[in-house]
Amino acid sequence: MTAPSGIPNGIPAEINIGLMGLGVVGTGVAATLLRENSHLSDLIGRAVKLKKVLVRDLSRPRDIDLPAGLLTANAEDILADPDIHILVEVMGGTDPAEAYLKQGLSAGKHVVTANKEVMAKSGPELLALARANGVNLLFEASVGGGIPIVGCLMNELAANDVRSIRSIINGTTNYILTAMAHQHTSFEQALSEAQERGYAEADPTNDIEGIDAAYKLTILASLAYRSTFQPGDVYCEGISKLEPQDFQYAQELGFAIKSLAIANLVDGAVQLRVYPALLPAEHMLAKVDGVYNAVEIDGSLCGQVLFHGMGAGREPTTSAVVGDLIEAARKMGGPSVLPLELPNGSGIPVRPIDDLMSRYYIRLGVADHPGVLAQIAQVLGDGQISIASVLQKDVHPETESAEIVITTHPAREASVQKALQIITELPQVRRVSNTLRIEE
Amino acid sequence: MTAPSGIPNGIPAEINIGLMGLGVVGTGVAATLLRENSHLSDLIGRAVKLKKVLVRDLSRPRDIDLPAGLLTANAEDILADPDIHILVEVMGGTDPAEAYLKQGLSAGKHVVTANKEVMAKSGPELLALARANGVNLLFEASVGGGIPIVGCLMNELAANDVRSIRSIINGTTNYILTAMAHQHTSFEQALSEAQERGYAEADPTNDIEGIDAAYKLTILASLAYRSTFQPGDVYCEGISKLEPQDFQYAQELGFAIKSLAIANLVDGAVQLRVYPALLPAEHMLAKVDGVYNAVEIDGSLCGQVLFHGMGAGREPTTSAVVGDLIEAARKMGGPSVLPLELPNGSGIPVRPIDDLMSRYYIRLGVADHPGVLAQIAQVLGDGQISIASVLQKDVHPETESAEIVITTHPAREASVQKALQIITELPQVRRVSNTLRIEE
Repeated sequence: MTAPSGIPNGIPAEINIGLMGLGVVGTGVAATLLRENSHLSDLIGRAVKLKKVLVRDLSRPRDIDLPAGLLTANAEDILADPDIHILVEVMGGTDPAEAYLKQGLSAGKHVVTANKEVMAKSGPELLALARANGVNLLFEASVGGGIPIVGCLMNELAANDVRSIRSIINGTTNYILTAMAHQHTSFEQALSEAQERGYAEADPTNDIEGIDAAYKLTILASLAYRSTFQPGDVYCEGISKLEPQDFQYAQELGFAIKSLAIANLVDGAVQLRVYPALLPAEHMLAKVDGVYNAVEIDGSLCGQVLFHGMGAGREPTTSAVVGDLIEAARKMGGPSVLPLELPNGSGIPVRPIDDLMSRYYIRLGVADHPGVLAQIAQVLGDGQISIASVLQKDVHPETESAEIVITTHPAREASVQKALQIITELPQVRRVSNTLRIEE
Repeated sequence: MTAPSGIPNGIPAEINIGLMGLGVVGTGVAATLLRENSHLSDLIGRAVKLKKVLVRDLSRPRDIDLPAGLLTANAEDILADPDIHILVEVMGGTDPAEAYLKQGLSAGKHVVTANKEVMAKSGPELLALARANGVNLLFEASVGGGIPIVGCLMNELAANDVRSIRSIINGTTNYILTAMAHQHTSFEQALSEAQERGYAEADPTNDIEGIDAAYKLTILASLAYRSTFQPGDVYCEGISKLEPQDFQYAQELGFAIKSLAIANLVDGAVQLRVYPALLPAEHMLAKVDGVYNAVEIDGSLCGQVLFHGMGAGREPTTSAVVGDLIEAARKMGGPSVLPLELPNGSGIPVRPIDDLMSRYYIRLGVADHPGVLAQIAQVLGDGQISIASVLQKDVHPETESAEIVITTHPAREASVQKALQIITELPQVRRVSNTLRIEE
């Protein structure tokens, strides 16, 4: 394998790094490269040097003191410099990051990126470009912060056929759900507290609607199934519909509520979804609290392996980026090892959410009249949906209203949705307050 | 770097494997290599073939059907065959495995081993031999079965200075402790149940006395601190001294009891120990039950990352061995990346257990007379040991005996041991029933 322009075959005496982005993560990466330089060079086996840092605004005050001349506002100072061997991209967003990554790979630079959006949307294309140019493209930091899940799926767990991935990979939503469960706050209160603490952005849509988690799940599932999924393949439900009663009833039934990102293989097709779900309280994933993340891999050989740690933040993400940088540098001169290279791997179909078989939790507001439950049970029975438990709750004599909480045995999603439409139209049913899936 | 005899520089068209050992794990590895051959070849990027399997007794009936001519009882059929590129050793024990590993490395073969005893005792020597011969030596399966902790310490988490490792890495002891905690059985009952279920060997010494965990901790700490520790550096206490009361009192105090293998860096020295300890009940490690293992790494960047999974058994160990095999095969033709290569890494001293600063749980059998507690408190106070809580328990009027359970604030191990010697000699103290450390 010969390396294209810029990088001689073999290994340069000093490895030069071009860093793109000097936000929270970029500052952590630059600080580590400067502070730990001699240690990193020892780990890699040759000298490593931060040569250039791309920023948008040269004059902006920074948390970090960088040597003079390191900053540039011109991407070409990195992309067109043949002496920069490894490009580290921590800018985020697709534009201009994706174009820079393509240009860097085409110029024969090894690439380390933390960019989940680009990797979820254009990972296959970028990996093909890396392959064509004989370079490595590493993206541990795109999922799970300090949790080494990307590398483990590619390397340490490579011998396994992955049966399922079940994960909590958005710290913002997990922080909000933990507050709602333990402090009995409303969604709105919990969100505004998360925003005050810097755990949620001013516009929290990407986090609370599951979009961020869908990007990450796309990356994990593509690695696990050696296929090329797109974020649009992931069925998504956000957490804003959850109410304090749901947490109360879930707890009474022995469950926690977590926003889960799940991929699993059923009869040769992969089901991909992000939604809040009930989990048995004693399950390890149910114990993941606050901004922590966790990923559970169920592999054909390893069984269930769970990874738990900090999924975001400057230091954990720096751990992933610098870990990739060490790996990229160590691998220079050797064959590039890229994922998604299986000849037979790209044809796994995606199974639509309608086909999901799951248990369900259904919370209904009804008129407090005799016979309501019988009517609801009749509709569920007609749809072949078998009831596992019923709670009747919160009867308010003044409004003659009550709440009914039903859990079902495994049923087909499409049947449940159809039954709920019929139930909504029953005269004594005031609303279907919430429908959540139950993970075993 | 040039490879010595046997392996040409570059990559052979077909990679041949020599497997040593066809016990539980060897059978799993052989079955996977045969059943998943085309899939593995895809993953690696070239054909891979199981060429020879070393067994002790050719005539013994086996769980697996192997192609004729694959078995041999002569190690030279693997070691002296220049066409065998990767040696996979899953025999266990030091003799003859260690000699075979040395011979294989010297012959320029890449080596994958599951042998914790050899890696703990002679890892540095074997790694030096691998380095001298330009080959890789991989040993993921030596610790934690299906949990990818060895690779993560070497690769994904390499950017971190490790502050501590806290782990449950012996499934047999964890099974016994879980039974004692949940079923209130005695140690002897729990052990014999573990033996019946095949979770403990007929001679359980290595497991219950912490020797097995000490081997594994030696390997993890050597990787984490890039140093060369020996099993003898690990302070060890077994679990046979635990009694049902300890679990009862620990639970009342809000703790679980787990056998922990711990390494941490204190003032430039590493403390290494395996012992049963009290852990807050809400800690993730306290929730690791049955034969499961878990390893928590506290890194300077990643923070606390926890890995949880099956620590032993045919399939999980096969996951690790075949994962290493894929990695070794992918790396052929590239530079070998071996741990323990830091020029400044080998000089970290080991801190003796006497220097440990810890909280303690002390259970005493005393005569039920007024003033006993005052005497004990006096001795502890003289030793600068501050009491955190006291429970007085189980007064038996007929024998005038009582139990006192004391927890302390952090104190120095040597001071606690000295105080306990004095306390033992107090006339009204009948015995020091147990002393356990409390992990925060």
